[in-house]
Amino acid sequence: MGIIREDFMLKNGTARRLYHTYAKDLPILDYHCHLSPRQIAEDVRFRDAAELFLGGDHYKWRQMRSNGVDERLITGDGDGYEKWCAFARTVPLLVGNPLYHWTALELKRYFDVDTPLTSRTAREIWDACNRRLASDEFSARALIRRSNVEVLCTTDDPADDLRYHKQLRREGFATRVLPTFRPDKLLQIDSPAFCDYLADVGVASYEQAVAWLTRRVDFFHENGCRLADHSLESVAFARGDAAAVFAKRLRGEELTASEIAAYKTELLLACAALYTKRGWVMQLHIGALRNNNSRRFAQLGADTGFDSMNDFCLAQDLSALLDTMERTDSLPKTIFYALNPKDNYVLGTMLGNFQRGPVAGKLQLGSGWWFNDNRDGMEAQLKALANLGVLGNFVGMLTDSRSFVSYPRHEYFRRIFCNLLGTWVEDGEYPDDEEALQQIVEGVCCRNAETYFAF
Amino acid sequence: MGIIREDFMLKNGTARRLYHTYAKDLPILDYHCHLSPRQIAEDVRFRDAAELFLGGDHYKWRQMRSNGVDERLITGDGDGYEKWCAFARTVPLLVGNPLYHWTALELKRYFDVDTPLTSRTAREIWDACNRRLASDEFSARALIRRSNVEVLCTTDDPADDLRYHKQLRREGFATRVLPTFRPDKLLQIDSPAFCDYLADVGVASYEQAVAWLTRRVDFFHENGCRLADHSLESVAFARGDAAAVFAKRLRGEELTASEIAAYKTELLLACAALYTKRGWVMQLHIGALRNNNSRRFAQLGADTGFDSMNDFCLAQDLSALLDTMERTDSLPKTIFYALNPKDNYVLGTMLGNFQRGPVAGKLQLGSGWWFNDNRDGMEAQLKALANLGVLGNFVGMLTDSRSFVSYPRHEYFRRIFCNLLGTWVEDGEYPDDEEALQQIVEGVCCRNAETYFAF
Amino acid sequence: MGIIREDFMLKNGTARRLYHTYAKDLPILDYHCHLSPRQIAEDVRFRDAAELFLGGDHYKWRQMRSNGVDERLITGDGDGYEKWCAFARTVPLLVGNPLYHWTALELKRYFDVDTPLTSRTAREIWDACNRRLASDEFSARALIRRSNVEVLCTTDDPADDLRYHKQLRREGFATRVLPTFRPDKLLQIDSPAFCDYLADVGVASYEQAVAWLTRRVDFFHENGCRLADHSLESVAFARGDAAAVFAKRLRGEELTASEIAAYKTELLLACAALYTKRGWVMQLHIGALRNNNSRRFAQLGADTGFDSMNDFCLAQDLSALLDTMERTDSLPKTIFYALNPKDNYVLGTMLGNFQRGPVAGKLQLGSGWWFNDNRDGMEAQLKALANLGVLGNFVGMLTDSRSFVSYPRHEYFRRIFCNLLGTWVEDGEYPDDEEALQQIVEGVCCRNAETYFAF
Repeated sequence: MGIIREDFMLKNGTARRLYHTYAKDLPILDYHCHLSPRQIAEDVRFRDAAELFLGGDHYKWRQMRSNGVDERLITGDGDGYEKWCAFARTVPLLVGNPLYHWTALELKRYFDVDTPLTSRTAREIWDACNRRLASDEFSARALIRRSNVEVLCTTDDPADDLRYHKQLRREGFATRVLPTFRPDKLLQIDSPAFCDYLADVGVASYEQAVAWLTRRVDFFHENGCRLADHSLESVAFARGDAAAVFAKRLRGEELTASEIAAYKTELLLACAALYTKRGWVMQLHIGALRNNNSRRFAQLGADTGFDSMNDFCLAQDLSALLDTMERTDSLPKTIFYALNPKDNYVLGTMLGNFQRGPVAGKLQLGSGWWFNDNRDGMEAQLKALANLGVLGNFVGMLTDSRSFVSYPRHEYFRRIFCNLLGTWVEDGEYPDDEEALQQIVEGVCCRNAETYFAF
Repeated sequence: MGIIREDFMLKNGTARRLYHTYAKDLPILDYHCHLSPRQIAEDVRFRDAAELFLGGDHYKWRQMRSNGVDERLITGDGDGYEKWCAFARTVPLLVGNPLYHWTALELKRYFDVDTPLTSRTAREIWDACNRRLASDEFSARALIRRSNVEVLCTTDDPADDLRYHKQLRREGFATRVLPTFRPDKLLQIDSPAFCDYLADVGVASYEQAVAWLTRRVDFFHENGCRLADHSLESVAFARGDAAAVFAKRLRGEELTASEIAAYKTELLLACAALYTKRGWVMQLHIGALRNNNSRRFAQLGADTGFDSMNDFCLAQDLSALLDTMERTDSLPKTIFYALNPKDNYVLGTMLGNFQRGPVAGKLQLGSGWWFNDNRDGMEAQLKALANLGVLGNFVGMLTDSRSFVSYPRHEYFRRIFCNLLGTWVEDGEYPDDEEALQQIVEGVCCRNAETYFAF
Repeated sequence: MGIIREDFMLKNGTARRLYHTYAKDLPILDYHCHLSPRQIAEDVRFRDAAELFLGGDHYKWRQMRSNGVDERLITGDGDGYEKWCAFARTVPLLVGNPLYHWTALELKRYFDVDTPLTSRTAREIWDACNRRLASDEFSARALIRRSNVEVLCTTDDPADDLRYHKQLRREGFATRVLPTFRPDKLLQIDSPAFCDYLADVGVASYEQAVAWLTRRVDFFHENGCRLADHSLESVAFARGDAAAVFAKRLRGEELTASEIAAYKTELLLACAALYTKRGWVMQLHIGALRNNNSRRFAQLGADTGFDSMNDFCLAQDLSALLDTMERTDSLPKTIFYALNPKDNYVLGTMLGNFQRGPVAGKLQLGSGWWFNDNRDGMEAQLKALANLGVLGNFVGMLTDSRSFVSYPRHEYFRRIFCNLLGTWVEDGEYPDDEEALQQIVEGVCCRNAETYFAF
């Protein structure tokens, strides 16, 4: 009765052959996630299925809220089993939602549970999971190890001392756990928290900010970092005197929109130059609209399931930004993630303006992000990329997750990717050339990322 | 040869089983339409097939114009049979257009006509329809009754005395015909007709406007209304002194864009508070660009087929609007209808920011509206909702129509919905769990709306 | 092993029957391309496969850059075979890209090569192509003749003396080679090259500009032109004193955005009136963002593969523009091409606002343009048009190409179109009415364009 069978998402023979022969056993390079390095280093364990599956997972919280579940059983002090039951009665209604498939995959791959989760089966599955959670196979590290993860990149503030990354390397944890440089707090000059952040890191001028960033990039580089990440909640290109804007902000004066844009542009250009010099990859996550529900934000803080998709126009400003980087030899390898699917085609064509050797696929359209991390979103991204660029050079999937059982999302992606490829072959749109297909499947599912990031 | 067969739009066995077992015979809750309450109360009859099928139906007028038909045979004084023939020669070219399917369904369900309408068959079908139109089965009320309509919500101005609704209730018409509160004229302060409307309803200040609205909401409520409707032709959030703007408008002075936005925002907030208090549902129809052809508007007036899709950015302003409502406990149950399909994903994620119990699916993404009321548009809406929210809680279809033979659009939706569900099951993406599937099909096709609107 | 088989892109029996019976042998009306009239007149020949396939084709250049190929082997002085090999190693990675299919079609149709192009087969195919290129069947005119091209419209500046068009007519070249009137340089008042252009054509005031345009339209008309073309890189509607703006520009003063918009609007209105009077078709290509990479632009100039998609909002301004034309009886037959696929639905509904007899399909949604000229883009355009308008009146495909071997794109389109139609028939969504289907297939693939353009 379970849906996770050999041929899950694989609708033709070629798709099944490609997945099972080439994709299935490849290691995972999870080059962007939000796991806690501390939790990995401390090798945390999970009290029960509620903590493992529902703790910190705002994707699930949103859907429970959509289903009318009281906040007490979502982020509140309800007991674990009650929360589990609230989730269980939501799941069957999530037909067509990625959570339905993720949940089935997580139960199957980690707990060998085939039974669909419903109100009727909630108890039985709760008990089965909890029995197993007690074993050594369910600590943070064990979950990562069992998932065949070769490299895992966390997301870190430049101020981070990377002590957990160092500890893991020292202890020889088989999976390489590498940091990612995410200097959002230094760029967000319009945030109320900006000055506090500056005080914390000991920066008092724009010049100091750039110097500090440079030192931190070097420190991260020494610790294996090869990736930066920026959340661009707008793309407003403007040149200006960043040092003057910085000083004005420190004096407590109100900044204009163009001053904010100029500061962000200048600092992003400075960052890009640092990344380029060190051969890093810059990730740009574009278009989130965060913390929309101010009442819940006051109660629960950020990243609790109250973010959505913005819909601004970005082509002209992004073009100017990239052109400026390219003109000054400071356009690094870059991955664009569009939150709004309307931007797939805009970004997919923008890439082509700035591609250049010797790197194949120097600029990348990232895999379906967040609200697009589902079958339709992935297929839309894959088809956009295929139509507009070189799909065979795509660096593939990442989890972007806070959960230790999210690795089956790589399996999900690989099945969807092999299915698309197999469909093209069986429809006579691409030759049944085993060598070419093997290269594409292994490339997109793992090898391209190894080459591209060069960790 | 006709296309309306048992398995129309149902491409697999599960889809056919779900449709015929669970969906087909459910009553219709048509919670949003533009039928004339007077015509229902007067139980009007139709002279001929031209009046029934073409009278007032601007969807058909547009396509006849697209096919080069002279306006005389569309809205002009051409004779009925000539108009019918002009329509008949357009229909075969409408391959892939919902009108092709709607026309076939209307001919089949109400007239038992299987033959496709073409120039060759125009006469024969004209005669067949007209013969039947003479019978008692073709009055307005008979058409509604035969269509298994349980509840029908018209769209009404707050000033309406609801006499026809009262008459229908008094006479015990089996279908409940309920009003919908649509105060667009009071919100459209930028319309030339604004002051005349105020004079008609006896309102001379903002305070009076709110007081009058409150009384009218109560009056509508007493008459069974549980739904409001707003056409948002822009979403510009701004706070301000609505009373001052109102007074300025009455003095005949020109308003600025931000004054207009502030007035509309404040009054919409006031409306939302009224709806919330009474447990009503607020419908927001977002993104129409109306009366584009000024010459035709001068000749024919509004709602004659010269409207199209706007394409503004809305995420930030809509977020601010909803957040303000939520913070003040005045966010009612709300249905968002996006006219521009680019907004499906923006709205689909916006919902999640403000969902809360105890209502399951408090905020809803409305079914494919107007130019999206077709197979592709419905599937896009259903998939967006499935990917982003809880499809199982969706309140489903409405006709939004001015035609007494538009009810087969519910059949069309149900077939498309069951087909999507059946495809997922047969592709192994959702378990073949009869109980869960029955709940979802009955919910989306009828029961969720019953619960949600609580008429 | 080759993919170009009888049933390429035709996935059901009806599709195959429609394509092979009705579509396959229809002549080609290529009503928009960028071939060089001089090259046709001079009946140029091609040195080798690199010159024929890669020379001037910026679609291929982009993908070679995406694959990390050095610019020397793209637009540089690398030798032909090296360039060919660089392309050959890129092709297998282009799975899902139209170039993959176009390349296979070009090799099959012109060189009878079935083998997929890869690094392994590069030499063998290079030799096979070059052997044949020496024959008389591979001159510019021979390629056009063999491709069954009835009419071919080039894209020409109003200042062009049309000598090559005249020569071809004089010499009785079987394919009619007609000019298209593209006055972009006169509209682009914000371009640095504007004043030089004025000097070249001897225009010194707005009045003279309009008079000159009028004379050139007449001259083009005498030479068989029935089509104009405008690239709208923005759609900003504004009325104003165009003569004053023109004079200000000539004086070397900086123009404001609204002055630029007013000039462009007024001149476009004047052009539209000229076209309307002569029964011409106006093409509007909307939404390109050109020359994004300024360093490459300085090196290589325009049209070298550094353009992409813009993403502005256009509905309101375009509506005002068309309404102004319609009110003044100067809205010509018009084809809208959207570069950004988000605009398919906006334009598809905009058409309906201004359709009027006696022309069937007076306003047209153009076939998938540039970055949409691929299977998904064409299907999206066809489905948008089908859902929103009268697909049966569509004027169909064009190459928009600079290549003499691009005609198989018409075959590609016809196969995709017949496949869509066949799918609808086999799914029971349109009757299997041979006469109606024949009319639609022949209409969309050729006959509608013949009627519409009336060359």
